Amino acid sequence: MSLDPIKPDLIPFLSSYLPPRQHDTKETKPFVTLTYAQSIDARISLGPGIRTTISDVETKVMTHYLRYHHDAILIGSGTVLADDPGLNCKWHRDTRDSKMDENSPRPVILDPSQKWRFKGSKMYDLFKNGEGKPPIVVVRGKPRLEEEHVKYLIMESTQEKIDWKILIERLSNEFGIKSIMVEGGAFVINDLLLRDDIVDSLIVTIGSTYLGENGVQVSPKSAISLMDVDWWKGKKDSIMVARLEPEKN
Amino acid sequence: MSLDPIKPDLIPFLSSYLPPRQHDTKETKPFVTLTYAQSIDARISLGPGIRTTISDVETKVMTHYLRYHHDAILIGSGTVLADDPGLNCKWHRDTRDSKMDENSPRPVILDPSQKWRFKGSKMYDLFKNGEGKPPIVVVRGKPRLEEEHVKYLIMESTQEKIDWKILIERLSNEFGIKSIMVEGGAFVINDLLLRDDIVDSLIVTIGSTYLGENGVQVSPKSAISLMDVDWWKGKKDSIMVARLEPEKN
Ligand SMILES: NC(=O)c1ccc[n+]([C@@H]2O[C@H](COP(=O)([O-])OP(=O)(O)OC[C@H]3O[C@@H](n4cnc5c(N)ncnc54)[C@H](OP(=O)(O)O)[C@@H]3O)[C@@H](O)[C@H]2O)c1
Ligand SMILES: NC(=O)c1ccc[n+]([C@@H]2O[C@H](COP(=O)([O-])OP(=O)(O)OC[C@H]3O[C@@H](n4cnc5c(N)ncnc54)[C@H](OP(=O)(O)O)[C@@H]3O)[C@@H](O)[C@H]2O)c1
Repeated sequence: MSLDPIKPDLIPFLSSYLPPRQHDTKETKPFVTLTYAQSIDARISLGPGIRTTISDVETKVMTHYLRYHHDAILIGSGTVLADDPGLNCKWHRDTRDSKMDENSPRPVILDPSQKWRFKGSKMYDLFKNGEGKPPIVVVRGKPRLEEEHVKYLIMESTQEKIDWKILIERLSNEFGIKSIMVEGGAFVINDLLLRDDIVDSLIVTIGSTYLGENGVQVSPKSAISLMDVDWWKGKKDSIMVARLEPEKN
Repeated sequence: MSLDPIKPDLIPFLSSYLPPRQHDTKETKPFVTLTYAQSIDARISLGPGIRTTISDVETKVMTHYLRYHHDAILIGSGTVLADDPGLNCKWHRDTRDSKMDENSPRPVILDPSQKWRFKGSKMYDLFKNGEGKPPIVVVRGKPRLEEEHVKYLIMESTQEKIDWKILIERLSNEFGIKSIMVEGGAFVINDLLLRDDIVDSLIVTIGSTYLGENGVQVSPKSAISLMDVDWWKGKKDSIMVARLEPEKN
Protein backbone atom coordinates (compact mmCIF):
# COMPACT_ATOMS: atom_id res chain seq x y z
CA MET A 1 0.00 0.00 0.00
CA SER A 2 1.35 3.43 -0.85
CA LEU A 3 -0.02 6.48 0.88
CA ASP A 4 -1.84 9.40 -0.67
CA PRO A 5 -0.19 12.76 0.07
CA ILE A 6 -1.47 14.42 3.24
CA LYS A 7 -3.96 17.28 2.70
CA PRO A 8 -1.82 20.43 3.06
CA ASP A 9 -4.22 22.12 5.51
CA LEU A 10 -3.99 19.16 7.92
CA ILE A 11 -0.40 20.07 8.76
CA PRO A 12 -1.05 23.48 10.39
CA PHE A 13 -4.31 22.11 11.84
CA LEU A 14 -2.46 19.37 13.74
CA SER A 15 0.72 21.26 14.60
CA SER A 16 -0.12 22.48 18.10
CA TYR A 17 -1.53 19.08 19.06
CA LEU A 18 1.70 17.20 18.31
CA PRO A 19 4.49 16.53 20.81
CA PRO A 20 6.80 19.56 21.11
CA ARG A 21 10.03 19.13 19.14
CA GLN A 22 12.32 19.95 22.05
CA HIS A 23 11.08 18.69 25.33
CA ASP A 24 11.33 21.17 28.15
CA THR A 25 14.10 19.75 30.35
CA LYS A 26 11.94 20.08 33.45
CA GLU A 27 9.14 18.11 31.78
CA THR A 28 9.71 14.45 32.49
CA LYS A 29 6.27 13.08 31.65
CA PRO A 30 6.10 11.84 28.07
CA PHE A 31 3.64 13.61 25.77
CA VAL A 32 0.55 11.43 25.25
CA THR A 33 -1.73 11.75 22.22
CA LEU A 34 -5.00 9.81 22.28
CA THR A 35 -6.28 9.13 18.79
CA TYR A 36 -8.92 6.96 17.13
CA ALA A 37 -11.44 6.82 14.30
CA GLN A 38 -15.14 6.38 15.02
CA SER A 39 -18.47 6.32 13.23
CA ILE A 40 -21.14 8.98 13.86
CA ASP A 41 -22.59 6.61 16.47
CA ALA A 42 -19.23 6.43 18.31
CA ARG A 43 -18.32 2.89 17.27
CA ILE A 44 -14.71 2.00 16.50
CA SER A 45 -15.51 -1.39 14.96
CA LEU A 46 -18.54 -3.38 13.79
CA GLY A 47 -18.00 -5.80 16.65
CA PRO A 48 -15.22 -7.30 18.76
CA GLY A 49 -12.66 -8.84 16.42
CA ILE A 50 -14.16 -7.42 13.21
CA ARG A 51 -11.63 -5.25 11.39
CA THR A 52 -13.62 -2.28 10.17
CA THR A 53 -12.75 0.53 7.78
CA ILE A 54 -14.05 3.80 9.14
CA SER A 55 -11.87 6.58 7.81
CA ASP A 56 -11.46 7.67 4.24
CA VAL A 57 -8.12 7.68 2.33
CA GLU A 58 -7.78 11.42 2.95
CA THR A 59 -7.68 10.92 6.72
CA LYS A 60 -5.95 7.51 6.76
CA VAL A 61 -2.64 9.13 5.82
CA MET A 62 -2.97 11.28 8.96
CA THR A 63 -2.47 8.20 11.15
CA HIS A 64 0.92 7.63 9.51
CA TYR A 65 1.77 11.33 9.77
CA LEU A 66 0.99 11.18 13.51
CA ARG A 67 3.04 8.01 13.94
CA TYR A 68 5.99 9.84 12.35
CA HIS A 69 5.84 12.38 15.18
CA HIS A 70 5.80 9.95 18.12
CA ASP A 71 8.44 7.75 19.71
CA ALA A 72 5.96 5.01 20.60
CA ILE A 73 2.50 3.77 19.66
CA LEU A 74 0.51 2.04 22.38
CA ILE A 75 -2.43 -0.37 21.98
CA GLY A 76 -4.26 -2.84 24.21
CA SER A 77 -4.28 -6.62 23.95
CA GLY A 78 -7.86 -6.56 22.60
CA THR A 79 -6.75 -4.65 19.51
CA VAL A 80 -3.54 -6.56 18.84
CA LEU A 81 -5.40 -9.87 19.05
CA ALA A 82 -8.41 -8.72 17.00
CA ASP A 83 -6.68 -6.74 14.25
CA ASP A 84 -3.06 -7.97 14.00
CA PRO A 85 -2.01 -4.40 13.15
CA GLY A 86 1.33 -3.47 11.56
CA LEU A 87 1.74 -0.19 13.49
CA ASN A 88 4.57 1.08 11.33
CA CYS A 89 4.93 4.49 9.70
CA LYS A 90 4.67 4.82 5.93
CA TRP A 91 4.82 8.60 5.88
CA HIS A 92 8.08 10.50 5.35
CA ARG A 93 9.07 14.09 4.76
CA ASP A 94 11.17 13.46 1.65
CA THR A 95 13.09 10.64 -0.02
CA ARG A 96 16.22 11.12 2.13
CA ASP A 97 14.04 10.27 5.06
CA SER A 98 12.15 7.25 3.79
CA LYS A 99 13.49 4.43 5.95
CA MET A 100 10.39 2.82 7.41
CA ASP A 101 12.12 1.18 10.37
CA GLU A 102 13.69 4.48 11.45
CA ASN A 103 10.50 6.49 10.99
CA SER A 104 8.27 3.98 12.68
CA PRO A 105 7.36 4.40 16.34
CA ARG A 106 8.15 1.67 18.86
CA PRO A 107 5.01 -0.47 19.32
CA VAL A 108 4.00 -0.79 22.98
CA ILE A 109 1.56 -3.63 23.57
CA LEU A 110 -0.43 -3.66 26.80
CA ASP A 111 -0.71 -7.41 27.25
CA PRO A 112 -0.74 -8.04 31.02
CA SER A 113 -2.08 -11.58 30.66
CA GLN A 114 0.47 -12.46 27.91
CA LYS A 115 -2.00 -13.64 25.32
CA TRP A 116 -0.23 -12.28 22.25
CA ARG A 117 2.82 -13.58 20.33
CA PHE A 118 5.12 -11.37 18.25
CA LYS A 119 6.33 -14.25 16.08
CA GLY A 120 3.91 -14.79 13.21
CA SER A 121 2.31 -11.34 13.54
CA LYS A 122 2.19 -8.62 10.90
CA MET A 123 4.45 -6.55 13.18
CA TYR A 124 7.00 -9.37 13.03
CA ASP A 125 6.95 -9.48 9.22
CA LEU A 126 7.40 -5.73 8.98
CA PHE A 127 10.31 -5.83 11.43
CA LYS A 128 11.97 -8.66 9.48
CA ASN A 129 11.62 -6.59 6.27
CA GLY A 130 13.18 -3.52 7.87
CA GLU A 131 9.83 -1.74 7.76
CA GLY A 132 9.05 -1.45 11.44
CA LYS A 133 10.42 -1.78 14.97
CA PRO A 134 9.96 -4.74 17.31
CA PRO A 135 7.63 -4.10 20.28
CA ILE A 136 7.84 -3.48 23.98
CA VAL A 137 5.29 -5.77 25.61
CA VAL A 138 3.88 -4.66 28.96
CA VAL A 139 3.23 -7.71 31.09
CA ARG A 140 2.11 -8.39 34.63
CA GLY A 141 4.74 -10.45 36.44
CA LYS A 142 7.70 -12.21 34.86
CA PRO A 143 6.90 -13.35 31.26
CA ARG A 144 6.27 -17.07 30.91
CA LEU A 145 7.95 -17.02 27.54
CA GLU A 146 10.52 -14.51 26.31
CA GLU A 147 10.45 -13.95 22.56
CA GLU A 148 13.47 -12.87 20.56
CA HIS A 149 13.65 -9.10 19.70
CA VAL A 150 10.84 -8.27 22.13
CA LYS A 151 11.53 -6.02 25.12
CA TYR A 152 9.45 -6.68 28.22
CA LEU A 153 8.26 -4.08 30.64
CA ILE A 154 7.33 -6.04 33.73
CA MET A 155 4.71 -4.46 35.97
CA GLU A 156 3.95 -5.49 39.54
CA SER A 157 1.72 -8.51 39.63
CA THR A 158 -0.33 -7.44 42.64
CA GLN A 159 -2.51 -4.83 40.93
CA GLU A 160 -5.48 -5.74 38.76
CA LYS A 161 -5.04 -2.65 36.60
CA ILE A 162 -1.73 -1.28 35.45
CA ASP A 163 -1.06 2.25 36.72
CA TRP A 164 -0.84 4.62 33.73
CA LYS A 165 1.40 7.09 35.57
CA ILE A 166 3.98 4.45 36.45
CA LEU A 167 3.76 2.91 32.98
CA ILE A 168 4.53 6.10 31.07
CA GLU A 169 7.24 7.11 33.55
CA ARG A 170 8.97 3.77 33.05
CA LEU A 171 8.62 4.01 29.25
CA SER A 172 10.39 7.35 29.53
CA ASN A 173 13.10 6.37 32.03
CA GLU A 174 13.91 2.86 30.82
CA PHE A 175 13.32 3.22 27.06
CA GLY A 176 13.80 6.96 26.43
CA ILE A 177 10.27 7.32 25.09
CA LYS A 178 9.24 10.98 25.20
CA SER A 179 6.04 10.83 23.17
CA ILE A 180 3.35 8.16 22.97
CA MET A 181 0.47 7.88 20.55
CA VAL A 182 -2.36 5.76 21.95
CA GLU A 183 -4.37 4.16 19.13
CA GLY A 184 -6.86 2.01 21.00
CA GLY A 185 -8.96 0.05 21.50
CA ALA A 186 -12.13 0.91 23.34
CA PHE A 187 -11.03 -0.23 26.79
CA VAL A 188 -7.82 1.77 26.68
CA ILE A 189 -9.49 4.87 25.17
CA ASN A 190 -12.41 4.91 27.63
CA ASP A 191 -9.97 4.68 30.50
CA LEU A 192 -7.64 7.41 29.23
CA LEU A 193 -10.45 9.84 28.35
CA LEU A 194 -10.84 10.26 32.12
CA ARG A 195 -7.11 10.97 32.63
CA ASP A 196 -6.42 14.64 31.94
CA ASP A 197 -3.23 14.15 33.98
CA ILE A 198 -1.90 11.69 31.37
CA VAL A 199 -3.38 12.76 28.02
CA ASP A 200 -1.97 15.90 26.35
CA SER A 201 -3.98 15.89 23.17
CA LEU A 202 -6.97 14.18 21.64
CA ILE A 203 -7.43 13.60 17.89
CA VAL A 204 -10.70 11.95 16.80
CA THR A 205 -11.60 11.15 13.20
CA ILE A 206 -15.34 10.86 12.59
CA GLY A 207 -16.32 8.85 9.53
CA SER A 208 -19.70 9.48 7.91
CA THR A 209 -21.21 6.09 8.64
CA TYR A 210 -23.22 4.38 11.38
CA LEU A 211 -21.84 1.04 12.60
CA GLY A 212 -24.91 0.23 14.70
CA GLU A 213 -25.56 -0.75 18.29
CA ASN A 214 -23.57 -4.00 18.22
CA GLY A 215 -20.34 -2.16 17.42
CA VAL A 216 -17.51 -1.59 19.90
CA GLN A 217 -18.18 1.85 21.34
CA VAL A 218 -16.12 4.64 22.82
CA SER A 219 -17.89 6.40 25.67
CA PRO A 220 -16.20 7.13 28.99
CA LYS A 221 -17.70 6.09 32.36
CA SER A 222 -18.74 9.68 33.07
CA ALA A 223 -19.19 12.95 31.17
CA ILE A 224 -16.06 14.93 30.33
CA SER A 225 -15.43 18.40 28.95
CA LEU A 226 -12.97 19.38 26.26
CA MET A 227 -11.04 22.58 25.64
CA ASP A 228 -8.96 24.10 22.81
CA VAL A 229 -11.31 22.43 20.33
CA ASP A 230 -10.82 22.72 16.60
CA TRP A 231 -12.39 20.90 13.66
CA TRP A 232 -11.11 19.97 10.22
CA LYS A 233 -13.58 18.99 7.53
CA GLY A 234 -12.79 16.59 4.77
CA LYS A 235 -15.06 15.27 2.03
CA LYS A 236 -16.29 12.27 3.97
CA ASP A 237 -14.68 12.53 7.38
CA SER A 238 -14.31 15.22 9.96
CA ILE A 239 -11.49 15.48 12.52
CA MET A 240 -11.71 17.02 15.98
CA VAL A 241 -8.60 18.03 17.93
CA ALA A 242 -8.88 19.03 21.58
CA ARG A 243 -7.40 18.81 25.04
CA LEU A 244 -9.12 17.25 28.05
CA GLU A 245 -10.35 19.87 30.47
CA PRO A 246 -8.74 19.41 33.90
CA GLU A 247 -11.25 18.07 36.38
CA LYS A 248 -12.54 20.65 38.83
CA ASN A 249 -12.17 19.48 42.41
CA MET B 1 -34.31 34.43 24.62
CA SER B 2 -33.36 36.19 21.41
CA LEU B 3 -31.45 34.38 18.71
CA ASP B 4 -27.98 35.12 17.41
CA PRO B 5 -27.88 35.67 13.65
CA ILE B 6 -27.28 32.50 11.64
CA LYS B 7 -23.71 32.02 10.34
CA PRO B 8 -23.94 33.13 6.68
CA ASP B 9 -22.17 30.02 5.33
CA LEU B 10 -24.76 27.73 6.97
CA ILE B 11 -27.42 28.91 4.52
CA PRO B 12 -25.84 27.55 1.29
CA PHE B 13 -24.55 24.53 3.24
CA LEU B 14 -28.09 23.53 4.25
CA SER B 15 -29.97 24.57 1.12
CA SER B 16 -30.04 21.28 -0.79
CA TYR B 17 -31.00 19.36 2.35
CA LEU B 18 -34.15 21.41 2.99
CA PRO B 19 -37.62 20.59 1.65
CA PRO B 20 -38.03 21.82 -1.94
CA ARG B 21 -39.99 25.09 -2.12
CA GLN B 22 -42.53 23.80 -4.64
CA HIS B 23 -43.44 20.21 -4.15
CA ASP B 24 -43.52 18.23 -7.34
CA THR B 25 -47.24 17.55 -7.91
CA LYS B 26 -46.59 13.85 -8.42
CA GLU B 27 -44.72 13.70 -5.14
CA THR B 28 -47.24 12.93 -2.44
CA LYS B 29 -44.92 11.77 0.31
CA PRO B 30 -44.00 14.64 2.65
CA PHE B 31 -40.32 15.58 2.82
CA VAL B 32 -38.82 14.24 6.06
CA THR B 33 -35.72 15.74 7.68
CA LEU B 34 -34.15 13.83 10.58
CA THR B 35 -32.15 16.12 12.83
CA TYR B 36 -30.55 15.98 16.27
CA ALA B 37 -27.58 17.14 18.31
CA GLN B 38 -25.19 14.63 19.86
CA SER B 39 -21.95 14.50 21.79
CA ILE B 40 -18.78 12.92 20.33
CA ASP B 41 -19.85 9.68 22.04
CA ALA B 42 -23.25 9.76 20.30
CA ARG B 43 -25.32 10.72 23.35
CA ILE B 44 -28.29 13.09 22.99
CA SER B 45 -28.75 13.63 26.71
CA LEU B 46 -26.93 12.91 29.98
CA GLY B 47 -29.66 10.46 30.91
CA PRO B 48 -33.38 9.86 30.43
CA GLY B 49 -35.23 12.97 31.56
CA ILE B 50 -32.12 15.14 31.99
CA ARG B 51 -32.30 18.22 29.76
CA THR B 52 -28.80 18.59 28.35
CA THR B 53 -27.17 21.39 26.39
CA ILE B 54 -25.05 19.95 23.62
CA SER B 55 -24.85 22.49 20.84
CA ASP B 56 -23.26 25.89 20.96
CA VAL B 57 -25.11 29.18 20.31
CA GLU B 58 -23.75 29.24 16.76
CA THR B 59 -25.53 25.99 15.88
CA LYS B 60 -28.58 26.45 18.15
CA VAL B 61 -29.99 29.09 15.79
CA MET B 62 -29.87 26.46 13.01
CA THR B 63 -32.63 24.50 14.74
CA HIS B 64 -34.92 27.53 14.46
CA TYR B 65 -33.85 28.14 10.87
CA LEU B 66 -34.75 24.52 10.06
CA ARG B 67 -38.09 24.81 11.84
CA TYR B 68 -38.87 27.86 9.67
CA HIS B 69 -38.58 25.62 6.59
CA HIS B 70 -40.86 22.82 7.71
CA ASP B 71 -44.64 22.52 8.06
CA ALA B 72 -44.41 20.21 11.06
CA ILE B 73 -42.00 19.15 13.78
CA LEU B 74 -42.35 15.63 15.13
CA ILE B 75 -41.12 14.24 18.46
CA GLY B 76 -41.78 11.14 20.55
CA SER B 77 -43.57 10.93 23.89
CA GLY B 78 -40.24 10.31 25.66
CA THR B 79 -38.95 13.72 24.63
CA VAL B 80 -42.13 15.69 25.26
CA LEU B 81 -42.42 14.21 28.77
CA ALA B 82 -38.70 14.60 29.61
CA ASP B 83 -38.01 18.04 28.16
CA ASP B 84 -41.35 19.93 27.92
CA PRO B 85 -40.05 21.58 24.72
CA GLY B 86 -41.56 24.72 23.18
CA LEU B 87 -40.99 23.63 19.56
CA ASN B 88 -41.72 27.06 18.09
CA CYS B 89 -39.68 29.02 15.57
CA LYS B 90 -37.88 32.17 16.65
CA TRP B 91 -36.07 32.70 13.36
CA HIS B 92 -37.47 35.00 10.65
CA ARG B 93 -36.24 36.41 7.38
CA ASP B 94 -36.98 40.07 8.18
CA THR B 95 -39.23 42.14 10.45
CA ARG B 96 -42.27 41.92 8.10
CA ASP B 97 -42.11 38.21 8.68
CA SER B 98 -41.65 38.03 12.42
CA LYS B 99 -44.94 36.50 13.62
CA MET B 100 -43.89 33.51 15.68
CA ASP B 101 -47.19 31.66 15.43
CA GLU B 102 -47.19 31.89 11.62
CA ASN B 103 -43.52 30.91 11.28
CA SER B 104 -43.68 28.06 13.72
CA PRO B 105 -44.16 24.51 12.48
CA ARG B 106 -47.10 22.43 13.68
CA PRO B 107 -45.93 20.22 16.58
CA VAL B 108 -46.73 16.53 16.02
CA ILE B 109 -46.46 14.49 19.19
CA LEU B 110 -46.19 10.73 18.91
CA ASP B 111 -48.01 9.79 22.09
CA PRO B 112 -49.75 6.47 21.39
CA SER B 113 -50.35 5.71 25.07
CA GLN B 114 -51.69 9.24 25.76
CA LYS B 115 -49.35 10.11 28.61
CA TRP B 116 -48.86 13.79 27.77
CA ARG B 117 -51.14 16.80 28.39
CA PHE B 118 -51.04 19.98 26.28
CA LYS B 119 -52.57 22.14 29.02
CA GLY B 120 -49.85 23.34 31.38
CA SER B 121 -47.02 22.64 28.91
CA LYS B 122 -44.55 25.15 27.50
CA MET B 123 -46.14 24.55 24.09
CA TYR B 124 -49.49 25.65 25.57
CA ASP B 125 -48.02 28.87 26.97
CA LEU B 126 -46.41 29.73 23.66
CA PHE B 127 -49.66 29.07 21.80
CA LYS B 128 -51.61 31.27 24.26
CA ASN B 129 -49.08 34.08 23.70
CA GLY B 130 -49.38 33.81 19.91
CA GLU B 131 -45.84 32.43 19.70
CA GLY B 132 -46.53 28.91 18.51
CA LYS B 133 -49.11 26.53 17.09
CA PRO B 134 -51.13 23.94 19.02
CA PRO B 135 -50.16 20.32 18.37
CA ILE B 136 -51.43 17.30 16.52
CA VAL B 137 -51.22 14.37 18.92
CA VAL B 138 -50.86 10.92 17.39
CA VAL B 139 -52.71 8.42 19.56
CA ARG B 140 -53.53 4.75 19.39
CA GLY B 141 -57.31 4.30 19.53
CA LYS B 142 -59.88 6.94 20.45
CA PRO B 143 -58.42 9.48 22.94
CA ARG B 144 -59.66 9.04 26.49
CA LEU B 145 -59.64 12.81 26.94
CA GLU B 146 -59.89 15.42 24.20
CA GLU B 147 -58.12 18.67 25.01
CA GLU B 148 -59.16 22.03 23.61
CA HIS B 149 -57.10 23.25 20.56
CA VAL B 150 -55.43 19.85 20.11
CA LYS B 151 -56.01 17.89 16.91
CA TYR B 152 -55.90 14.11 17.24
CA LEU B 153 -54.62 11.72 14.64
CA ILE B 154 -56.06 8.38 15.66
CA MET B 155 -54.12 5.31 14.56
CA GLU B 156 -55.43 1.77 14.56
CA SER B 157 -55.27 0.28 17.99
CA THR B 158 -54.30 -3.21 16.88
CA GLN B 159 -50.64 -2.55 16.04
CA GLU B 160 -47.92 -2.26 18.67
CA LYS B 161 -45.89 0.14 16.55
CA ILE B 162 -47.31 2.91 14.46
CA ASP B 163 -46.57 2.53 10.75
CA TRP B 164 -44.40 5.48 9.62
CA LYS B 165 -45.63 5.30 6.02
CA ILE B 166 -49.28 5.54 7.01
CA LEU B 167 -48.53 8.24 9.57
CA ILE B 168 -46.79 10.61 7.16
CA GLU B 169 -49.37 9.96 4.44
CA ARG B 170 -52.17 10.88 6.81
CA LEU B 171 -50.32 13.99 8.01
CA SER B 172 -50.13 15.01 4.36
CA ASN B 173 -53.70 14.10 3.34
CA GLU B 174 -55.60 15.17 6.45
CA PHE B 175 -53.52 18.13 7.62
CA GLY B 176 -51.80 19.34 4.43
CA ILE B 177 -48.36 18.76 5.92
CA LYS B 178 -45.78 18.57 3.13
CA SER B 179 -42.58 18.70 5.17
CA ILE B 180 -41.74 17.22 8.57
CA MET B 181 -38.70 17.82 10.72
CA VAL B 182 -38.10 14.98 13.17
CA GLU B 183 -36.26 16.22 16.27
CA GLY B 184 -36.11 13.16 18.50
CA GLY B 185 -35.68 11.42 20.79
CA ALA B 186 -33.47 8.36 20.63
CA PHE B 187 -36.23 5.82 20.06
CA VAL B 188 -37.68 7.74 17.13
CA ILE B 189 -34.26 8.55 15.59
CA ASN B 190 -32.91 4.99 15.87
CA ASP B 191 -36.05 3.70 14.18
CA LEU B 192 -35.99 6.26 11.34
CA LEU B 193 -32.25 5.88 10.62
CA LEU B 194 -33.20 2.50 9.15
CA ARG B 195 -35.92 4.02 6.94
CA ASP B 196 -34.38 5.35 3.73
CA ASP B 197 -37.89 5.13 2.26
CA ILE B 198 -39.13 7.77 4.73
CA VAL B 199 -36.16 10.04 5.50
CA ASP B 200 -35.05 12.54 2.82
CA SER B 201 -32.28 14.27 4.67
CA LEU B 202 -30.20 13.89 7.80
CA ILE B 203 -28.69 16.81 9.73
CA VAL B 204 -26.56 15.94 12.77
CA THR B 205 -24.86 18.49 15.01
CA ILE B 206 -21.87 17.12 16.91
CA GLY B 207 -20.93 19.05 20.03
CA SER B 208 -17.35 18.82 21.34
CA THR B 209 -18.16 17.05 24.58
CA TYR B 210 -18.50 13.51 25.91
CA LEU B 211 -21.71 12.78 27.85
CA GLY B 212 -20.55 9.35 29.02
CA GLU B 213 -21.91 5.84 28.92
CA ASN B 214 -25.04 6.54 30.98
CA GLY B 215 -26.34 9.04 28.42
CA VAL B 216 -29.21 8.37 26.01
CA GLN B 217 -27.54 7.18 22.84
CA VAL B 218 -28.31 7.24 19.14
CA SER B 219 -27.16 4.11 17.33
CA PRO B 220 -29.38 2.17 14.94
CA LYS B 221 -30.03 -1.58 15.30
CA SER B 222 -27.71 -2.32 12.38
CA ALA B 223 -24.99 -0.54 10.38
CA ILE B 224 -26.11 1.97 7.74
CA SER B 225 -24.35 3.86 4.98
CA LEU B 226 -24.74 7.50 4.08
CA MET B 227 -24.39 9.36 0.79
CA ASP B 228 -24.16 13.00 -0.35
CA VAL B 229 -22.22 13.76 2.81
CA ASP B 230 -21.03 17.25 3.62
CA TRP B 231 -19.57 18.81 6.79
CA TRP B 232 -19.71 22.29 8.24
CA LYS B 233 -17.23 23.26 10.91
CA GLY B 234 -17.97 25.77 13.61
CA LYS B 235 -15.84 26.85 16.54
CA LYS B 236 -17.11 24.23 18.95
CA ASP B 237 -19.55 22.12 16.95
CA SER B 238 -19.49 20.38 13.63
CA ILE B 239 -22.52 19.62 11.47
CA MET B 240 -22.94 16.71 9.07
CA VAL B 241 -25.59 16.69 6.36
CA ALA B 242 -26.28 13.53 4.38
CA ARG B 243 -28.87 11.26 2.86
CA LEU B 244 -29.49 7.65 3.84
CA GLU B 245 -28.15 5.25 1.24
CA PRO B 246 -30.96 3.06 -0.14
CA GLU B 247 -30.66 -0.48 1.14
CA LYS B 248 -29.36 -2.94 -1.42
CA ASN B 249 -31.66 -5.92 -1.73
N1 LIG C 1 -11.21 2.58 14.95
C1 LIG C 1 -10.12 2.67 15.67
O1 LIG C 1 -9.49 3.72 15.71
C2 LIG C 1 -9.65 1.48 16.47
C3 LIG C 1 -8.38 1.50 17.02
C4 LIG C 1 -7.99 0.42 17.80
C5 LIG C 1 -8.85 -0.64 18.03
N2 LIG C 1 -10.08 -0.63 17.47
C6 LIG C 1 -11.02 -1.73 17.75
O2 LIG C 1 -11.19 -1.87 19.15
C7 LIG C 1 -11.52 -3.23 19.46
C8 LIG C 1 -10.66 -3.69 20.62
O3 LIG C 1 -10.96 -2.91 21.72
P1 LIG C 1 -10.99 -3.56 23.17
O4 LIG C 1 -11.67 -2.60 24.07
O5 LIG C 1 -11.55 -4.93 23.04
O6 LIG C 1 -9.45 -3.78 23.51
P2 LIG C 1 -8.19 -2.88 23.89
O7 LIG C 1 -8.58 -1.60 24.54
O8 LIG C 1 -7.28 -2.83 22.72
O9 LIG C 1 -7.49 -3.85 24.95
C9 LIG C 1 -8.06 -4.06 26.22
C10 LIG C 1 -7.13 -4.91 27.03
O10 LIG C 1 -5.90 -4.24 27.23
C11 LIG C 1 -5.43 -4.54 28.53
N3 LIG C 1 -5.43 -3.28 29.31
C12 LIG C 1 -5.80 -2.06 28.89
N4 LIG C 1 -5.63 -1.14 29.86
C13 LIG C 1 -5.13 -1.79 30.92
C14 LIG C 1 -4.72 -1.40 32.22
N5 LIG C 1 -4.77 -0.11 32.63
N6 LIG C 1 -4.28 -2.37 33.05
C15 LIG C 1 -4.22 -3.65 32.66
N7 LIG C 1 -4.58 -4.07 31.44
C16 LIG C 1 -5.01 -3.15 30.58
C17 LIG C 1 -6.38 -5.54 29.13
O11 LIG C 1 -5.83 -6.78 28.74
P3 LIG C 1 -6.13 -8.26 29.34
O12 LIG C 1 -7.63 -8.35 29.48
O13 LIG C 1 -5.56 -9.13 28.28
O14 LIG C 1 -5.43 -8.37 30.66
C18 LIG C 1 -7.67 -5.22 28.40
O15 LIG C 1 -8.58 -6.28 28.36
C19 LIG C 1 -11.26 -4.03 18.21
O16 LIG C 1 -12.52 -4.39 17.64
C20 LIG C 1 -10.51 -3.06 17.30
O17 LIG C 1 -10.79 -3.27 15.94
C21 LIG C 1 -10.49 0.41 16.68
N1 LIG D 1 -30.13 16.24 21.64
C1 LIG D 1 -31.22 16.17 20.91
O1 LIG D 1 -31.20 16.56 19.74
C2 LIG D 1 -32.48 15.59 21.48
C3 LIG D 1 -33.70 15.76 20.81
C4 LIG D 1 -34.84 15.17 21.33
C5 LIG D 1 -34.77 14.42 22.50
N2 LIG D 1 -33.59 14.27 23.15
C6 LIG D 1 -33.51 13.45 24.37
O2 LIG D 1 -34.00 12.15 24.09
C7 LIG D 1 -34.53 11.57 25.27
C8 LIG D 1 -35.88 10.96 24.95
O3 LIG D 1 -35.69 9.93 24.03
P1 LIG D 1 -36.54 8.60 24.13
O4 LIG D 1 -35.90 7.60 23.24
O5 LIG D 1 -36.77 8.29 25.56
O6 LIG D 1 -38.00 9.04 23.60
P2 LIG D 1 -38.66 9.45 22.22
O7 LIG D 1 -37.98 8.84 21.04
O8 LIG D 1 -38.88 10.92 22.22
O9 LIG D 1 -40.09 8.78 22.42
C9 LIG D 1 -40.23 7.38 22.40
C10 LIG D 1 -41.71 7.05 22.50
O10 LIG D 1 -42.41 7.56 21.38
C11 LIG D 1 -43.42 6.66 21.00
N3 LIG D 1 -43.09 6.14 19.65
C12 LIG D 1 -42.02 6.44 18.91
N4 LIG D 1 -42.07 5.80 17.73
C13 LIG D 1 -43.19 5.07 17.74
C14 LIG D 1 -43.80 4.19 16.81
N5 LIG D 1 -43.29 3.95 15.59
N6 LIG D 1 -44.97 3.60 17.18
C15 LIG D 1 -45.50 3.84 18.40
N7 LIG D 1 -44.96 4.66 19.30
C16 LIG D 1 -43.83 5.27 18.96
C17 LIG D 1 -43.43 5.57 22.05
O11 LIG D 1 -44.32 6.05 23.05
P3 LIG D 1 -45.06 5.21 24.22
O12 LIG D 1 -43.99 4.34 24.85
O13 LIG D 1 -45.50 6.33 25.11
O14 LIG D 1 -46.14 4.44 23.63
C18 LIG D 1 -42.00 5.58 22.52
O15 LIG D 1 -41.79 5.04 23.79
C19 LIG D 1 -34.64 12.68 26.28
O16 LIG D 1 -33.62 12.51 27.26
C20 LIG D 1 -34.40 13.95 25.48
O17 LIG D 1 -33.75 14.95 26.22
C21 LIG D 1 -32.46 14.86 22.67
